[in-house]
Amino acid sequence: MHVGIAQINVHVGAFEQNAAAIIARIEDARDRGCDLVVFPELAIPGYAPMDLVWRHGFVDAGRRALDRIAAASRGIGVLVGGIASEAQQEGVNRFDLSAVADGGGTNLYNVAYLIDDGRLVETIAKLHLPVYDIYAEKRHFEPGPGARVAAFRGHTIGINICEDLWVDDGPTETQANLGAEWVINLSASPFYAGKDEIRRRMVRRRATENGVGIVYVNLVGGQDELVFDGGSFVVSSSGEILFHAPFFADGLFVVDLDAPSAAPVPSLDRWEALRRAITLGIRDYVLKNGFQEVLLGLSGGVDSALVAALAAEAVLPENVTAVYMPSEFSSAESRVDARETARRLGIEWIEISIAEPHDTLRQSLPQRAEGIVDENLQPRLRGLLLMGLANQRDALVLAPGNKSEIAVGYNTLYGDTVGALAPIADLYKDDVYRMAATFSDRIPKRVLQKAPSAELRAGQRDAADLPPYAILDPILRGLIEENLSRDELIAAGFPETIVDDILRRYYMNEHKRRQLPPGIKLTPKAFGIGRRPPLTNAYRH
Amino acid sequence: MHVGIAQINVHVGAFEQNAAAIIARIEDARDRGCDLVVFPELAIPGYAPMDLVWRHGFVDAGRRALDRIAAASRGIGVLVGGIASEAQQEGVNRFDLSAVADGGGTNLYNVAYLIDDGRLVETIAKLHLPVYDIYAEKRHFEPGPGARVAAFRGHTIGINICEDLWVDDGPTETQANLGAEWVINLSASPFYAGKDEIRRRMVRRRATENGVGIVYVNLVGGQDELVFDGGSFVVSSSGEILFHAPFFADGLFVVDLDAPSAAPVPSLDRWEALRRAITLGIRDYVLKNGFQEVLLGLSGGVDSALVAALAAEAVLPENVTAVYMPSEFSSAESRVDARETARRLGIEWIEISIAEPHDTLRQSLPQRAEGIVDENLQPRLRGLLLMGLANQRDALVLAPGNKSEIAVGYNTLYGDTVGALAPIADLYKDDVYRMAATFSDRIPKRVLQKAPSAELRAGQRDAADLPPYAILDPILRGLIEENLSRDELIAAGFPETIVDDILRRYYMNEHKRRQLPPGIKLTPKAFGIGRRPPLTNAYRH
Repeated sequence: MHVGIAQINVHVGAFEQNAAAIIARIEDARDRGCDLVVFPELAIPGYAPMDLVWRHGFVDAGRRALDRIAAASRGIGVLVGGIASEAQQEGVNRFDLSAVADGGGTNLYNVAYLIDDGRLVETIAKLHLPVYDIYAEKRHFEPGPGARVAAFRGHTIGINICEDLWVDDGPTETQANLGAEWVINLSASPFYAGKDEIRRRMVRRRATENGVGIVYVNLVGGQDELVFDGGSFVVSSSGEILFHAPFFADGLFVVDLDAPSAAPVPSLDRWEALRRAITLGIRDYVLKNGFQEVLLGLSGGVDSALVAALAAEAVLPENVTAVYMPSEFSSAESRVDARETARRLGIEWIEISIAEPHDTLRQSLPQRAEGIVDENLQPRLRGLLLMGLANQRDALVLAPGNKSEIAVGYNTLYGDTVGALAPIADLYKDDVYRMAATFSDRIPKRVLQKAPSAELRAGQRDAADLPPYAILDPILRGLIEENLSRDELIAAGFPETIVDDILRRYYMNEHKRRQLPPGIKLTPKAFGIGRRPPLTNAYRH
Repeated sequence: MHVGIAQINVHVGAFEQNAAAIIARIEDARDRGCDLVVFPELAIPGYAPMDLVWRHGFVDAGRRALDRIAAASRGIGVLVGGIASEAQQEGVNRFDLSAVADGGGTNLYNVAYLIDDGRLVETIAKLHLPVYDIYAEKRHFEPGPGARVAAFRGHTIGINICEDLWVDDGPTETQANLGAEWVINLSASPFYAGKDEIRRRMVRRRATENGVGIVYVNLVGGQDELVFDGGSFVVSSSGEILFHAPFFADGLFVVDLDAPSAAPVPSLDRWEALRRAITLGIRDYVLKNGFQEVLLGLSGGVDSALVAALAAEAVLPENVTAVYMPSEFSSAESRVDARETARRLGIEWIEISIAEPHDTLRQSLPQRAEGIVDENLQPRLRGLLLMGLANQRDALVLAPGNKSEIAVGYNTLYGDTVGALAPIADLYKDDVYRMAATFSDRIPKRVLQKAPSAELRAGQRDAADLPPYAILDPILRGLIEENLSRDELIAAGFPETIVDDILRRYYMNEHKRRQLPPGIKLTPKAFGIGRRPPLTNAYRH
C-alpha cells in the first residue's frame, strides 16, 4: 500500500482555502500512485478552532468542505481530520456516535474521516481528549465510543487521533488485537525543544509493545502561540524508522508500506530547531493575520537584536524595521551596536529620540516623575511611538521580552511588553545569549557579551536590580518547569533570600503576564494559554 | 438538626487566613447551637486556585489547614471544601479514591471534608467537573468514584459539590434513594445577572423530583473576573424556600431543619444586583491584591462616570482619584461634566492637559501623525499618564471599557484599555446608560444624555464611526450570547452590510481582547477566561 503523508499548513477557519490545499494534495497523491493520502488532525477547520466550534454554521461549513474533498477523491483513499456533530452522522456513518452523546457536552467530535473513491466510509472519533497544558479539548468535544478498526481496500487499519497514541490505555492495543496491519495516527502536535525525540520514542514503544507499524502524520505551521513542526514518520512493528519527513516544511511524502527499509531521522540541533520554530511562528502569525511588515524597538541589547535577526529571517529583511529610541540614559555604545545590528541584518533603521517627550511627560505629572515612575515612562513612551509607527505602516510590533524577565516582571506593562507577538517570550535569558551566539555573523560581538541593562537610569545594570541570571534562570526553571516549592528550591542549594525574592516577584507579576501579547511556545511550560493561574493570590511558596 | 450556613469570603492561596476565618465561624456556630456548620466549595484554598494546585506543597498546605480546622471542631460537625490528593487519603478516608485514579490525570480531587467532633470522618469527591465557560476543572481534578450518603449523628445526609447538583444525572437521585434526609451542596457559583433565579429554580426542581430537601451553600466575594454572590438557601422536598441568605454578604446563618417554615427571597432588582456585584468585584480585587486606592481617567462621558461612581462605592470616595486629561479636541462641556461628576462623588480631581505632550509626540514620528494614528496617540498618552500616577501613588487603574466597544475594538490598545481591572467590560453600551441612570443623584444629567464621543478629533461622534448602539447592541447580543451566525443575524432582520461590518470588527479585534485587563463577569458569556478563541482566524461568519 502506497501512503501519502500530507504534512500540510492550514489556516484556522479558512475552510475554502484549507479544502483547496487538501484537494491539491489529493490530486498530487493520486498522480504519485498513492492508495491512501493522510492529513493531520482537524486539517479541515485548522487546529485549533477552539471556541469557534460553537459559532452556528461553523461545523456545517466544515461539512461542506468535506463534501468538496470527498468529491475530489475519485480513485483514491483519503484520511482527513475534521469536526463532526452527532446530527451529521445520520445515514452517513456506520459508527453509532449517538451512544456516547449524554447531553452533558457539546455533541461535537474531533474525527478522522475515511473517504474511498469519493465516498465517506468511516468517521472515527478521537477517544482521549487532553485538558492539560495548552489543551482544552473536553471543553469542545465528546470522546468517541471506543476503539475499532477499519477495512480499506482489503487491508485492516487502525485509525486514531493524536492523544489516542500518547495515553497508555489508548486504542492502539485494541486495534492491534483486532488485526490492524497498520495504525495511522492523525496528529497536531505542537513543538517544544526536544519534543520530536519524545514523539519518536513514544511511537516506537507503542509500535513494539503492540507489534504493529504506525504511520504518524503531523501538522506544520504557526497558530498564535503554537508552532507545529511537522516531522511526520513511519515506524515498523519492530520500532524501526522507515520514513521521516522534514521538520517545519509543508509537503506530500509517499511511502510504500509494503517495501520497508530503514530511513534516517533528519538531524536538527537544538538551536536550529528553535530558530526554525520561532521564524515559522513569526511568519505564519504575520501572514495569516494579513500583514507583511513588522517593526521592533532595537536597543543595542541582546534580546531585541535576537528578535530582529529572527524577524529578518522570518519575513525577509525588507519587511523589518528597527526603531532606535534613545533617551538621556542611552549610551553611545548602544546606538553603535543597534545601528550595526540593523546594518548587518539589512533591515530599515529609524531613529526617534525620546529625550524631549520624556522630559515633557515627566513634567506633566502633578509631581515630577522620579525613580521607578520615571523609569517606566520611558518604555511606555517607546511603546507608544512603536504603536504609532505600526498604525502608520500597517505593521505588527514584535515584543522583545524573554522568559526570565517576564517571570519576575522585570519589564514595563504597556512599555517594552507592547506588541502583537513576543517571539522569545519562552526563552530564558541564558538561552537568549546562547541562541544569539548562533547568529554571530549578524549580531555584533559586543551585543553578545555586554552586561545587560535596560538603560532607564544612569549606570543601570540588570545585575543591580535582579539576582545574577546564573542563579535566577536555574531557580526559574525549577519553579516554572518543575513546580518546585520554596522549600525544595532552598533544599537544592539556592539562597533563601533570593528564592523568596524571586517567588514574590513571580507571583505578584501575574497581572502583567495576563496582558502580554502571545509568545511562541518553545518549552513544555510556556507562559500563555497553557497556564491558568489566578491573579488574586496570597500564596508565596 | 441545626445547620449553620457559613457563607464566607475567602482569599485564594491564603491558607492561614482562610483557616482562621473558618475556625471563627465554627466557634460562632457552636455558640449558636449548630450541630453542623457548612462552608462553600474549596473554602480552604479559596476558589479557584487553578494551576496553583500543581505547586509542590500547595495541597499539603491545605491539608495542614484542614488539620487545624479539625482540631478546632470539638463538639460540632463541619463540612468544608478543599483539595485532596490520593496519597493523603490513606488511613484517613473510608472512601477508596484509588479506584478512580487511572494515572491519566492529576490524582487531585475537589472534595468536601466531613468532620465530627474533631475527627475527619468522610472525604467526598466532586463527581461532575465542569469544563464549559470559565471552568477547567477536569484540568485540575479527577472525578470522584460515585454517589453515596454519609451518616452524621443518626442522620443520613447526601453531600455533593456545586456542578453535581446542576447535571441531570448527578448524585442527588442516588443519594435520595439511599435514604438521604437532606442533600447538602457546597458551591462556588459565580454571579451573572439573573443567575440566582436560575439557581433556585434548578435546586427546587432537584428537590421535588427526588423528594429530598436541599441545603445550598454558596461562596461570597470577588476573585479576579468572578464575583460570588452568596444568596445561599434551603429548600424543602416540596420545593419551598425555607431559608434564604442575603446576597453579596459574608455571614453565618443558622437554620433549624426540623422546624421548617417558608422564608422570603431577598429582592434585588437587576441594577441593584449589578451594582453590588461590580462594587464587590472592585473592592475585593483592590484589597485582596494589597492596594487601597484606585484612579481612573474621567472624560465627561458616561462610561468613565459610571466606573467612577461604582469605584467610589466600592472603596470609598477618598480612595478614588479622577484624572481629567483634556486634549485640543476636548470640549468645554466635557470638563464641566467631568468636574461635576467628581464633585458629586466626592473623589479627588487631577487635571493634566495632554495638548503639549500630544503635539510633541505627533511631531516625533518621522511622518506627522494624522487620522487614526493621531487619534490613537491621545488615549495612549492618557494611559501612560495614568500608569505614571498609579506608580507614584501605589494605586490601581480602572479601565472604563464597555462590552460593546470591546466587542468591535472601538478602543485603543495600551490606551483607554490600560488598567488592572475593567469593571464594566461586561456591560453593553445600552446597559451602561441604563445603569448610569440609577446613579442620577451622582452623575450629572447631561452625562447621561449626551451623544457618545471619544473626542479624539474635531466633532467626532461614535455614531459616525459605528452603527447606532440601538442596532449594534442587539447584534452583539445575538453574536456573543447566542452565537448567532451571519445568516441568522440577517434572517433576524439586521441589515447585511452592518452585520458584515460588525462581524469583521468583532473577529479582527480578538488580539486586543487577549491583552485586556480582567473584566467583571456580569452575563453568561463575558470576554475573558470564559472564552477561548483563536487570534489567527479567517472565519467571518
